Amino acid sequence: MRPKIYLYGDSITEESFGDGGWGASLSHHFSRTVDVVLRGYSGYNTRWALKVAERIFPPVESGGVPPLAVTVFFGANDACLPDRYSAFQNVPLHEYKQNLHSIISFFKKRWPEIVILLITPPPIDEDARLRHPYIENPSGLPERTNEAAGAYAQACISVAKECGCPVVDLWIKMQECPDWKQAYLSDGLHLTQAGNRIVFEEVVKKLKEQGISVENLPVDLPLIANIDPQDPLKAFQDY
Amino acid sequence: MRPKIYLYGDSITEESFGDGGWGASLSHHFSRTVDVVLRGYSGYNTRWALKVAERIFPPVESGGVPPLAVTVFFGANDACLPDRYSAFQNVPLHEYKQNLHSIISFFKKRWPEIVILLITPPPIDEDARLRHPYIENPSGLPERTNEAAGAYAQACISVAKECGCPVVDLWIKMQECPDWKQAYLSDGLHLTQAGNRIVFEEVVKKLKEQGISVENLPVDLPLIANIDPQDPLKAFQDY
Repeated sequence: MRPKIYLYGDSITEESFGDGGWGASLSHHFSRTVDVVLRGYSGYNTRWALKVAERIFPPVESGGVPPLAVTVFFGANDACLPDRYSAFQNVPLHEYKQNLHSIISFFKKRWPEIVILLITPPPIDEDARLRHPYIENPSGLPERTNEAAGAYAQACISVAKECGCPVVDLWIKMQECPDWKQAYLSDGLHLTQAGNRIVFEEVVKKLKEQGISVENLPVDLPLIANIDPQDPLKAFQDY
Repeated sequence: MRPKIYLYGDSITEESFGDGGWGASLSHHFSRTVDVVLRGYSGYNTRWALKVAERIFPPVESGGVPPLAVTVFFGANDACLPDRYSAFQNVPLHEYKQNLHSIISFFKKRWPEIVILLITPPPIDEDARLRHPYIENPSGLPERTNEAAGAYAQACISVAKECGCPVVDLWIKMQECPDWKQAYLSDGLHLTQAGNRIVFEEVVKKLKEQGISVENLPVDLPLIANIDPQDPLKAFQDY
């Protein structure tokens, strides 16, 4: 039985198995060791995510293996401005923090050993949001701003510190590249293949710091390199 | 609880979550409806696959959802020639057929309703195998031939017919394109992104013919398009 790594988040998680997606890359990276399980819900904020967490993550049956880790990647929708067209997705900053605390508590209660890796929302390219609105937007104002996303990213990092959880500061990490708007964002919010690559690399790095790496995990069944060409069935005698 | 679709096979399955891979594309396609679970084992033939099937596919716990489907994609290694350097992977044609029958019986016994989708081995570009051998190959002879792969593909189709299972005839399908060697194969055996695309499209088509399609499957939690912006929490009142 391979252990699981859950990916819990919004559209940036739901779309992570598209071409070059960070979820698919994680599956590939952990192939033969871990099942990467996609639990992304486009448009969701932490308020809705919290309502459905019990249902999404059932307890492991007796004898089952608890999940190794979960990525918690919300905030891009919480940070929608409360007076713009995506206001119904907005969650006030203080509630976003509370909700993240509650989500972390939920996981710690369900699986005390699980690694909970927070990921901040990415930066926002406001001009691109005007060019690629989710619905018709005659206001001329973007529904998200980079400043608001930054405040939610900062809140996410605070919660991680308060709870002793690792965190990927995607908002900062992406903006280290001068060309971040074109390089990493496809519509001012969602990720290009290069943007997906950053998330993949950061998640692998943070999981490794927590002791979760391909090198440390048992491999599911003998690797071809460990099968004796003179007596291949010997490798399978215990199964 | 989302139902599962298992991908059971050799390296062409194990590598199916790489960039543009057919497994990742299936995950993306079935996002919010199905968990696509990777069970690919590089280098394995049907003899070894049969030895470990019980272990790889544990019974579903009581109350659990049985898997919807499994792709069974072996033969590329069985078809290694018995007098070339990968001879230890060879499984004689008659045993390959028997093993496929046994694998199908195993799944039908474990989960009577499961759709078992066979996939034939792909065609082989022998020149490319000489350029990209798995290990040093001073013999000047490829370890696989397209003719042998074709014989195993034909056997796979016969088994599918005998058992009433759907099958993707990848050996024929790929060779319908005059440029198949360059277009679909990266090393004469494994798949390019375009080759992966063929497998993805054929699997989606065959599953749909069996009633398994995104349109027919329940969606995991409300879609953002079905959440009322005036009263978002209404969509979650039953959770």
